[in-house]
Amino acid sequence: MERPRHQGMAKNTYMRWRLPLVCLLWEVAMVVLFGVFVRFSPEADAHWEEEKREMNLTSDIENDFYFRYPSFQDVHVMIFVGFGFLMTFLKRYGFGAVGFNFLLAAFGIQWALLMQGWFHSFKSGKILIGVENLINADFCVGSVCIAFGAILGKTSPIQLLVMTLFQVTLFAVNEYILLNLLHVKDAGGSMTIHTFGAYFGLTVTRILYRPNLEQSKDKQGSVYHSDLFAMIGTLYLWMYWPSFNSAISDHGDAQHRAAINTYCSLAACVLTTMAFSSMLQKKGKLDMVHIQNATLAGGVAVGTSAEMMLTPYGSLIVGFICGIVSTVGYVYLTPFLESRLHIQDTCGIHNLHAMPGLIGGIVGAVTAAAATEDVYGKEGFIKVFDFTGTYQTRTPSVQGGFQAAGIVVSLLMAFAGGAIVGAILKLPVWGDAAAENCFEDDIYWEVPEDEESDVYHMHNPDKPASP
Amino acid sequence: MERPRHQGMAKNTYMRWRLPLVCLLWEVAMVVLFGVFVRFSPEADAHWEEEKREMNLTSDIENDFYFRYPSFQDVHVMIFVGFGFLMTFLKRYGFGAVGFNFLLAAFGIQWALLMQGWFHSFKSGKILIGVENLINADFCVGSVCIAFGAILGKTSPIQLLVMTLFQVTLFAVNEYILLNLLHVKDAGGSMTIHTFGAYFGLTVTRILYRPNLEQSKDKQGSVYHSDLFAMIGTLYLWMYWPSFNSAISDHGDAQHRAAINTYCSLAACVLTTMAFSSMLQKKGKLDMVHIQNATLAGGVAVGTSAEMMLTPYGSLIVGFICGIVSTVGYVYLTPFLESRLHIQDTCGIHNLHAMPGLIGGIVGAVTAAAATEDVYGKEGFIKVFDFTGTYQTRTPSVQGGFQAAGIVVSLLMAFAGGAIVGAILKLPVWGDAAAENCFEDDIYWEVPEDEESDVYHMHNPDKPASP
Amino acid sequence: MERPRHQGMAKNTYMRWRLPLVCLLWEVAMVVLFGVFVRFSPEADAHWEEEKREMNLTSDIENDFYFRYPSFQDVHVMIFVGFGFLMTFLKRYGFGAVGFNFLLAAFGIQWALLMQGWFHSFKSGKILIGVENLINADFCVGSVCIAFGAILGKTSPIQLLVMTLFQVTLFAVNEYILLNLLHVKDAGGSMTIHTFGAYFGLTVTRILYRPNLEQSKDKQGSVYHSDLFAMIGTLYLWMYWPSFNSAISDHGDAQHRAAINTYCSLAACVLTTMAFSSMLQKKGKLDMVHIQNATLAGGVAVGTSAEMMLTPYGSLIVGFICGIVSTVGYVYLTPFLESRLHIQDTCGIHNLHAMPGLIGGIVGAVTAAAATEDVYGKEGFIKVFDFTGTYQTRTPSVQGGFQAAGIVVSLLMAFAGGAIVGAILKLPVWGDAAAENCFEDDIYWEVPEDEESDVYHMHNPDKPASP
Repeated sequence: MERPRHQGMAKNTYMRWRLPLVCLLWEVAMVVLFGVFVRFSPEADAHWEEEKREMNLTSDIENDFYFRYPSFQDVHVMIFVGFGFLMTFLKRYGFGAVGFNFLLAAFGIQWALLMQGWFHSFKSGKILIGVENLINADFCVGSVCIAFGAILGKTSPIQLLVMTLFQVTLFAVNEYILLNLLHVKDAGGSMTIHTFGAYFGLTVTRILYRPNLEQSKDKQGSVYHSDLFAMIGTLYLWMYWPSFNSAISDHGDAQHRAAINTYCSLAACVLTTMAFSSMLQKKGKLDMVHIQNATLAGGVAVGTSAEMMLTPYGSLIVGFICGIVSTVGYVYLTPFLESRLHIQDTCGIHNLHAMPGLIGGIVGAVTAAAATEDVYGKEGFIKVFDFTGTYQTRTPSVQGGFQAAGIVVSLLMAFAGGAIVGAILKLPVWGDAAAENCFEDDIYWEVPEDEESDVYHMHNPDKPASP
Repeated sequence: MERPRHQGMAKNTYMRWRLPLVCLLWEVAMVVLFGVFVRFSPEADAHWEEEKREMNLTSDIENDFYFRYPSFQDVHVMIFVGFGFLMTFLKRYGFGAVGFNFLLAAFGIQWALLMQGWFHSFKSGKILIGVENLINADFCVGSVCIAFGAILGKTSPIQLLVMTLFQVTLFAVNEYILLNLLHVKDAGGSMTIHTFGAYFGLTVTRILYRPNLEQSKDKQGSVYHSDLFAMIGTLYLWMYWPSFNSAISDHGDAQHRAAINTYCSLAACVLTTMAFSSMLQKKGKLDMVHIQNATLAGGVAVGTSAEMMLTPYGSLIVGFICGIVSTVGYVYLTPFLESRLHIQDTCGIHNLHAMPGLIGGIVGAVTAAAATEDVYGKEGFIKVFDFTGTYQTRTPSVQGGFQAAGIVVSLLMAFAGGAIVGAILKLPVWGDAAAENCFEDDIYWEVPEDEESDVYHMHNPDKPASP
Repeated sequence: MERPRHQGMAKNTYMRWRLPLVCLLWEVAMVVLFGVFVRFSPEADAHWEEEKREMNLTSDIENDFYFRYPSFQDVHVMIFVGFGFLMTFLKRYGFGAVGFNFLLAAFGIQWALLMQGWFHSFKSGKILIGVENLINADFCVGSVCIAFGAILGKTSPIQLLVMTLFQVTLFAVNEYILLNLLHVKDAGGSMTIHTFGAYFGLTVTRILYRPNLEQSKDKQGSVYHSDLFAMIGTLYLWMYWPSFNSAISDHGDAQHRAAINTYCSLAACVLTTMAFSSMLQKKGKLDMVHIQNATLAGGVAVGTSAEMMLTPYGSLIVGFICGIVSTVGYVYLTPFLESRLHIQDTCGIHNLHAMPGLIGGIVGAVTAAAATEDVYGKEGFIKVFDFTGTYQTRTPSVQGGFQAAGIVVSLLMAFAGGAIVGAILKLPVWGDAAAENCFEDDIYWEVPEDEESDVYHMHNPDKPASP
């Protein structure tokens, strides 16, 4: 095979002025915009005592904080530890995985508070934020973390910040179209977070296609302990997913039901993932890539329907299918996408988020279309689908149609948005690394000396002490 | 010493068809059984609005979800991250520890929802599940994770799935005998989870005795970073144990008290563990095995009594004693059990769960027998021990007797069940590894290349890029 | 450079009798003192049913447990996993970091329950504890974990236990002066926890100055995976800090607001940390030390003001500044303090806790002084600053003055206390290691064989099995 020409030396990955400039510029913008727009919601404002009287509440425990804060913290862990550590599987990109995820998420939540706030919490010229806004900001950033998975190891931190800026904006627009214009239900974000985030990321990575990426192939794998670090991410995502899908559902039965459905779906997903991981491998051995990722597909795929009366056994079926679809995707589809469609998907988000997200959208549409007053109760039926006001005459089958439209809109937004943002990220000013330096922390991070040589030094008593 | 004959090559550990078959078969069974039996409890059902009116509740915050969901999530973390990572201490069995624990727990919670549901939540032909059922399912699986600790590294994933199926069944039967027939209190499971789970696992490992296990002795130890991974498990178990022991206690003071008692017991346990770890070692150095395990014994040993008026200082005493008992167990008893009784207990569950579980049962019996209306208050006395209906004439000392009977029943169930299940697992069809391949992930997992050689390659610029 | 004379062999680090003695002695003292003094608060006592009637509460959900337990668990994780793993960055001191932190915190919380109990929860001769006491005990121990960061790697476990005993005592006295005598607000502990803890630790490390510490310089760095372990600590501290700052605030809006302010401050802090980490390095690369630490400064610095009407944009500004101050501190101040003032600050707590703590105190004083009835509402104004009883005539500006006095008192207590405790720890009886053995687990821990040699053995098929 002919060795591709090295381009590495030519690329300028020097961050010293560019990265600080972008970080500071954007943080200053946040400060100014927050100063102009963001205030506390009545439940977080010191005027709460008066508010409580007006709302006729007798106890502080009725503050939304106590309904949602534990779920918020679980979601927070999923975004920062879950996604961050899930991506540490690469042998030499752990700092980038967990560090850049930290950076983009910390910026993203601020920008999301503003963008989502303008659409959903804007009153008398101010965005009034409470715990539900924090959850929604984390959700929005979740879609950026997903897209990050596709381009992991191949982009500079500046590119990630630029992508976050645009993706959060587009997310908020798409979410507004779905939730407000189409009146679609999507509490766990199968469409708004996973479908949108994943196809957005896949489009971006397609446009940033690197023909010579095999130059860094030796760094695309894992080592023993990096796979264990990644399992920390996997397990926190898996365990807390019931909180994710129930975090912004209605108080009471809806949160309760969403958690149970998600728990069931995820449990089933683990077994079919293990089954197919072993079955699709000649030696019959389990593959950590599948265990780390495909076990989570069940959570993605009940994101829309978890708060509906999907029922525990419906959830098991969804999880069952998604474990299979996702694992098969890793084995057959990811190589195909890379070789034929030039989609280089580092973490396989197509298998973990894109396909299960689509399934989740469809399951949601079907579950909504199948809803009856008998199953939900007269009041429950209205409450779950919010068939009030303008929507009080909407029927389940119409709702199912709108749900399906939500999938299409999310896909279109993802493709169009991803194409534009991908083109922007292709500009040669953002400091991305050459193909041979991909998946290597050393480009953007101070990396400590090797363990190997350290161990050597420590066991060499003749080594003179450093001065 | 005469070298034992190698048996490795003769054993068939090929999983390709067996593991998928078992996983898929059992998951299909779950789907069918859930379809027939499992529905939402009224608090998770969309009819909740009507239910609320009937129960005369004024606020959604009265939904059991808000009383128990945070504790549920903590318990969930203990089962999957706590037990999973605690067992990653072995240098080359991290994938198996965390991965097989994931597999068996994900299956076990589904089967436990059914088994426990038939006994405790069966109404008009349906099992109605809510958040308390999820916690109980996690609890039940906890006992399987404990048993897994005894056979860690010596069994195939199929054996673990078979064991889970039987152990969950027996757990549910034992739990029914204790809680319903004997009317025993055991909210934190000293008897039902720890005593039962540990002696079950020890009996299984006794029957699966491997005479040539010293062939894999070089893999039975830890390395520096595997000990740190294990500490993640230890700390999550330690921190969240107050949630474990309080998760299914009565609302209000009982949950509150159970958390405080457990917090106190665990704190004391750390100090005596450290003391004896140093004292029992000639060089006076601390041993990570003790710190990782014996520090948790205090949580096990207040499992029965934590919701009673054990009092903070009673809890300190229990923790004090258990840190000592458990550490001494690791130093003297584990080697004795292995050499004399042929009980090969990989994680030392005898010291962490069996003995502290027995102590917990006894402490519970004594605390119950010592209860007075003076200490508990007239109403509290009735509420804590549920002395209502058939049991309204039961006295504390009689309750203490029944508590003690609960220990004996749990032990008998563990020995009998463990013997039967051990015999089943001994059948030569489950694909367990030869003695020389124990404690080695390579048998059942795709293991990445060594870090060492990777590092070497990365620093060798002359190495041609992989094609 | 002249090689300093080795002192290592002369130092007696043998722990076998000293460590067990201290651990057991102190734990026995705890048992006795708890027996004499500690009982359950009414909300955790079995008499709760009667209490509920007296307090006119209609539901168990009004029990303080449900207001604070989720926050308590988050704080608990911060103390044990957060601080513990944050300090595992050293290549060969991971056991000591996470293990000694575990030891001192487990002892400290017991002693803190007593000390704080005598000051704040003492009724009719008994300390009545509930979930808020557990949080406060964890808070108190947080200040010890901070001080531990300064002396990490240079002290014996006995020294740490001695320091914990004294520091907890002084913490409780200082806290009493601030909260009760000066009537200062400090719910998140910028002054009581961070300023006090950090300057206490810095004074101790100054007094324990080791002139020959460069002998262990090769062990003061990190390795690749130890930096990832440290990131676990960082992220859990970062994610749960909103719980920390809101855990003991008033029910309702105050907890809600404190969480939001902290969330905002921390998010801003990440961006300026990244900016300055890159900017201050010639090669423009990011430094894990900064990411692991300076990103948290924003949480420290809103500790006093988070429950006030700091507003989200005020929080962003605080976080913005602290990311810069803290990162600049790591680059310029830490080396200066070490070379000029002989303050050897292993973890750089001066940058993470001392300076941001001072800023936090000042921000709190200014925010309090700027408070108006317009912003807080008539009732909110009184409630947030507790301007009732003796304090009902106190004005915001006077409150601001007292807040400022709280900073000064905390500093004085830290310097005086640190000096005394440092002098005690300097006594040659506590078994600390020689300079050349600092930052090395091997002195106090059984350390497993190297990974390197293990790997070697495993790949050497000719190696005979261990007998």
